[in-house]
Amino acid sequence: MRDVVIPLEVRDLGPEHGPADDLRAELQSAAKAAGLLAPHMSPKLGGLGLDVRGQSVVFEEAGRSLLGPLALNCAAPDEGNMAMLQKIATPEQVERFLAPLAAGDTRSAFAMTEPAPGAGSDPSMLRTVAHRVDGGWSISGEKWFITGGEGAAFAIVMAKTSEQGATMFLVDADTPGYTVAERLDTVDRISPGGHARIVLHDVRVQDDEVLGAVDEGFKYAQVRLAPARLTHCMRWLGLGARALDIAIDHANRREAFGAKLADLGLAQRLIADSLIDVETSRAIIQRTAWILDTGNGNPTHASSIAKVHVSEAVGRIVDNAVQLCGAMGILEHPLGRMVAEVRPFRIYDGSNETHRWSIARRVARRRQAPTASETIER
Amino acid sequence: MRDVVIPLEVRDLGPEHGPADDLRAELQSAAKAAGLLAPHMSPKLGGLGLDVRGQSVVFEEAGRSLLGPLALNCAAPDEGNMAMLQKIATPEQVERFLAPLAAGDTRSAFAMTEPAPGAGSDPSMLRTVAHRVDGGWSISGEKWFITGGEGAAFAIVMAKTSEQGATMFLVDADTPGYTVAERLDTVDRISPGGHARIVLHDVRVQDDEVLGAVDEGFKYAQVRLAPARLTHCMRWLGLGARALDIAIDHANRREAFGAKLADLGLAQRLIADSLIDVETSRAIIQRTAWILDTGNGNPTHASSIAKVHVSEAVGRIVDNAVQLCGAMGILEHPLGRMVAEVRPFRIYDGSNETHRWSIARRVARRRQAPTASETIER
Amino acid sequence: MRDVVIPLEVRDLGPEHGPADDLRAELQSAAKAAGLLAPHMSPKLGGLGLDVRGQSVVFEEAGRSLLGPLALNCAAPDEGNMAMLQKIATPEQVERFLAPLAAGDTRSAFAMTEPAPGAGSDPSMLRTVAHRVDGGWSISGEKWFITGGEGAAFAIVMAKTSEQGATMFLVDADTPGYTVAERLDTVDRISPGGHARIVLHDVRVQDDEVLGAVDEGFKYAQVRLAPARLTHCMRWLGLGARALDIAIDHANRREAFGAKLADLGLAQRLIADSLIDVETSRAIIQRTAWILDTGNGNPTHASSIAKVHVSEAVGRIVDNAVQLCGAMGILEHPLGRMVAEVRPFRIYDGSNETHRWSIARRVARRRQAPTASETIER
Amino acid sequence: MRDVVIPLEVRDLGPEHGPADDLRAELQSAAKAAGLLAPHMSPKLGGLGLDVRGQSVVFEEAGRSLLGPLALNCAAPDEGNMAMLQKIATPEQVERFLAPLAAGDTRSAFAMTEPAPGAGSDPSMLRTVAHRVDGGWSISGEKWFITGGEGAAFAIVMAKTSEQGATMFLVDADTPGYTVAERLDTVDRISPGGHARIVLHDVRVQDDEVLGAVDEGFKYAQVRLAPARLTHCMRWLGLGARALDIAIDHANRREAFGAKLADLGLAQRLIADSLIDVETSRAIIQRTAWILDTGNGNPTHASSIAKVHVSEAVGRIVDNAVQLCGAMGILEHPLGRMVAEVRPFRIYDGSNETHRWSIARRVARRRQAPTASETIER
Repeated sequence: MRDVVIPLEVRDLGPEHGPADDLRAELQSAAKAAGLLAPHMSPKLGGLGLDVRGQSVVFEEAGRSLLGPLALNCAAPDEGNMAMLQKIATPEQVERFLAPLAAGDTRSAFAMTEPAPGAGSDPSMLRTVAHRVDGGWSISGEKWFITGGEGAAFAIVMAKTSEQGATMFLVDADTPGYTVAERLDTVDRISPGGHARIVLHDVRVQDDEVLGAVDEGFKYAQVRLAPARLTHCMRWLGLGARALDIAIDHANRREAFGAKLADLGLAQRLIADSLIDVETSRAIIQRTAWILDTGNGNPTHASSIAKVHVSEAVGRIVDNAVQLCGAMGILEHPLGRMVAEVRPFRIYDGSNETHRWSIARRVARRRQAPTASETIER
Repeated sequence: MRDVVIPLEVRDLGPEHGPADDLRAELQSAAKAAGLLAPHMSPKLGGLGLDVRGQSVVFEEAGRSLLGPLALNCAAPDEGNMAMLQKIATPEQVERFLAPLAAGDTRSAFAMTEPAPGAGSDPSMLRTVAHRVDGGWSISGEKWFITGGEGAAFAIVMAKTSEQGATMFLVDADTPGYTVAERLDTVDRISPGGHARIVLHDVRVQDDEVLGAVDEGFKYAQVRLAPARLTHCMRWLGLGARALDIAIDHANRREAFGAKLADLGLAQRLIADSLIDVETSRAIIQRTAWILDTGNGNPTHASSIAKVHVSEAVGRIVDNAVQLCGAMGILEHPLGRMVAEVRPFRIYDGSNETHRWSIARRVARRRQAPTASETIER
Repeated sequence: MRDVVIPLEVRDLGPEHGPADDLRAELQSAAKAAGLLAPHMSPKLGGLGLDVRGQSVVFEEAGRSLLGPLALNCAAPDEGNMAMLQKIATPEQVERFLAPLAAGDTRSAFAMTEPAPGAGSDPSMLRTVAHRVDGGWSISGEKWFITGGEGAAFAIVMAKTSEQGATMFLVDADTPGYTVAERLDTVDRISPGGHARIVLHDVRVQDDEVLGAVDEGFKYAQVRLAPARLTHCMRWLGLGARALDIAIDHANRREAFGAKLADLGLAQRLIADSLIDVETSRAIIQRTAWILDTGNGNPTHASSIAKVHVSEAVGRIVDNAVQLCGAMGILEHPLGRMVAEVRPFRIYDGSNETHRWSIARRVARRRQAPTASETIER
Repeated sequence: MRDVVIPLEVRDLGPEHGPADDLRAELQSAAKAAGLLAPHMSPKLGGLGLDVRGQSVVFEEAGRSLLGPLALNCAAPDEGNMAMLQKIATPEQVERFLAPLAAGDTRSAFAMTEPAPGAGSDPSMLRTVAHRVDGGWSISGEKWFITGGEGAAFAIVMAKTSEQGATMFLVDADTPGYTVAERLDTVDRISPGGHARIVLHDVRVQDDEVLGAVDEGFKYAQVRLAPARLTHCMRWLGLGARALDIAIDHANRREAFGAKLADLGLAQRLIADSLIDVETSRAIIQRTAWILDTGNGNPTHASSIAKVHVSEAVGRIVDNAVQLCGAMGILEHPLGRMVAEVRPFRIYDGSNETHRWSIARRVARRRQAPTASETIER
């Protein structure tokens, strides 16, 4: 990151969504040369076969630069898609969809979210529908905020296939009826392809393009989301740690009121609070990674907790960095950009309010039969 | 705001600094027709002669749109400059500098802040110097983060004129040696002319271009800052109130988890917290306005307190609005833009940490001789 | 407060509920001599006839000592009861119940809250019932957390009198069937009589002991609560302001790490934050007092907002004072006691969560027909 | 805890400091019977030889009851004293001081803190002095806030022995000149012996009562403090987890506004926030325990971070529990007591402000030579 990626950041200062193709290629080729491409993939697919705990170290480091996860081919949504495909795709699907994705030759999208009144925080409101046709399925509906949508070689499309069930489909982007209708004007811009609105009109897919079992889509979404939420935490924590370092460097250099900024108590408070946020985030990520790796505990519950804490902690860290840097902090580069990039993390993959709601309900249910001696009611 | 200004916001969606000249002219002409241009100026100068309490009502309303203060010609830095000039300029200076500014025919800048190691949060570090020359002064130095710098007809330049003293000079932008060297790439973009770096190299000004008395610049800066900080609060509170309304409208319309978003407790918490922030901000602004109008109390102290509270409250309100709007909240318009525009308010006009430091010192000094009976020490 | 009341605090250091009777008598007699007894009452009843704005100044000052409101006979629940009785009692009821209360000769209770599953945060769950009997009413039920219950000369008892309606009754404490069953072991201890559980078993009251109209009890409860909530804010703000002064005195005197504590940035942060909390609390109290005095605005809504802000602000102020005083802060006197006394304020008179819920619902309903141009939905 | 200790809590409801001797004896004898006494001690001393990670599980569980750590003989200050003695005491000192302490036969004190202007947050201000006399030392000075002071069999007394150096002495409580002058009236009451003021007047100790090396006292204090801080975190986290369970049980049972409290969003927010605080606390404790066990990282730095986070998290958890329980929450038992007991944790073992200051300075120094490419200064 320090020697190769961060020095290239000057080539990504514009308002475009995602770095230019040549910059991305250059970054990935440097990662490949260093043996670091797609480190979460099995060695067979060119990766390092890191478990979640291993990823937590590498992805945090990658996250120090907005370009880092792209360089290592472990950025969202590709990284989460790769992880899920590795678990449930057929060997043919691996070869056709996953292998080129892991090699960095293609990009992908995960198409679940829909405009209101469709599936947002509440996936049960899904309105995109697939119905059986001869030798396959026909999908129609509308998706939006589909990260990486423009330019993705294929999308994993979630569609309703029965009263209660939904199914995931692997849809090539050049399938007739599949249209990237719009790129949304979002505050974050690091994802190549931005966030797209995608219209599906009688999109035909074959049975071998069904991912996993029919009607099991919601279950797979959870399988994808629990680790994907955590890898988000890792990457954004890296950016937070970098923001703090930028702020400390500034505070070590800047003089005000007869002292170094780093020696003023009000600045020290911001620095200490941020460091505590960094360390507690790292700790909860590692603990959750251990839960995911070992199966001790509920991965969905654990990653919800980590997501809420880390997304808010990183938000505070970057905000404190802006404050510490004063006028320098409101420049677009580097901190203004970081603020904008990290903000949506409290909203996507389930807004923090939705997670809090799930967490509280799960915890309250667990205590339904409490031990009388520990309670206070008369 | 609702009928005229907000509908025109669609013409200001781009990445430029400030609305296009024709849009600004159209807005000001509408305000003039409504008798609302420069309402803080005396009737003689075309205004309504509102006192600070009166301004608190009108400026908050104007602030509901980022374009509103520009429409009413009460945006920073012009509004603060007008207020100061009205207090201390000579009749000739009023006619030459203030009258066209109040009429909206020109823009102005207030050039105090300097790049490190010059005057930032700590104005005593001033490095721009003016020395006497035949019939006037020669000013040299460098200023930055000068809002509205590009395109301003004149700047009020603060320069050191003796060991302890500084003086304000009215400098025409076309004076030889005065150069707008750069427009800084800041996260906020609503100010016409953006934030400039300005280089002064042997800039010659006449004695009649000295504003107020020689060596009294720091005193005037305080005179300017106390009300200017408060009018910032008024305008940004308006934007916060609008953000909350946008969020409530979304929450009233959006369904999730079988209920209207506005009926879910976790959303209600965000709405209630934001409303409390709106109301306490309004209350402290009114109380401070009363202090400024009546002279009861210390205006600098009071406006410091208001600035810290309101800037943080508005930050929370806009952030809560983003969270309530979910995916809609991370679009550039309208909320993403609001987040970026309002963020610097916690930094400029004295960072909140600098204000906290001043507030605490002032309060601690006042208690130097406490009544024994109220204390706890043995 | 400084000269008379605070020096007497040493006589109230024990674990009893409320100061001893002789101390209370001594304090009230000093207040009477100073012409300050029951300042919220009309001159006819021995008070000063202060409007709510006037009360906000006097009650805050009284609140600086836990004994102050008792001294001035403006402590809860008597003060709120007096204010309500002054508004709705008959002349005979004024003479019989209010006059001795205003004079400090008796104490009173307000008996609405019930143990679960009765009326707590949600008064509609009322289970105490009154039914008509010959020449009056028979009341049966159970109340708890009735402040001042033990030793009160009479209680204003809320009881259900029809399907939707409730009625307030003035019940002499020596009425047969009215029993103070228990004094609850609460963390706060300043109220004479503590918080009682009261059992009513076929308590007979006459028609002239009905307060106001039958079935209008809930309406009167609101009439009582809006100002009573605000006078709580005033008194507790006084205690908060005192706590801050104690902390500042300590910080001005104590040395650590080669400097005065008051000069260390981390202490300055706590001091400044507390002062901002004091000033915003004062501002929202004054604004709400103006609403109550003039009828401009919704008193219930406004006092809800003030209650949430001030109760949390005062909680932070006292907590910061403890932190600033270090080891001295965890002594029972004076700060430990203040922490315990002020904590329930976030719960009683409607918990802050209940108020947030009401505030959010009210605000959301007001925006049901928003102006299209201000919204963002597509 | 659930089966044996918590049912005995009813015998510790009074205002005394620490449970009665017979209750403590009964608890320790139950722990001994279960093989759980002093689990942090080596098996040779009757313990389980748990490393810090092992302690983190057992101590948290013990902490669920205020009586738990006393039952297991792992309460402060004895537990920290035992851990330090096990590391640095001579075999004779182990036999004489540590063995009876580990067996629960005696109690001990750690006497470092002094009244102002002596050693508080800043230990370099130490004023208690020991000077050499024939065959030993004479110690004079004053200590306060000495936990467990009254009734301790011996105290570890820190005294200045040279310009820069301090030494620890093992002082029998019956040594002439050693006087427990006062028990301080603190808000917490669980420690047997309370917090004492101790006066030392020419207290004579022998050379074999010096703990470790002369002049190395400050170093040992750090050795004691890093793990002692962390075991505090473990115990208090247990209490926090219990408080949350109490609140959830209440929320599962209580109805309001037509729903179970646990199903109301505003309550869910409090529950979820508390659970996140529990889990991040557990995670940072485990991570810090790993650092202490393995020596990877700076134990002082790591335990400072854990202490600040956990002490504030537990404070929030207990406060949220009070709020969730409403009127029940302000009763002295169980939650009022928990609030009072846990409050000092943000102050002792170094106030959180002192820790933040240390953390920020350490972090700023580490970045003194930052990599240019990661910074923003021009």
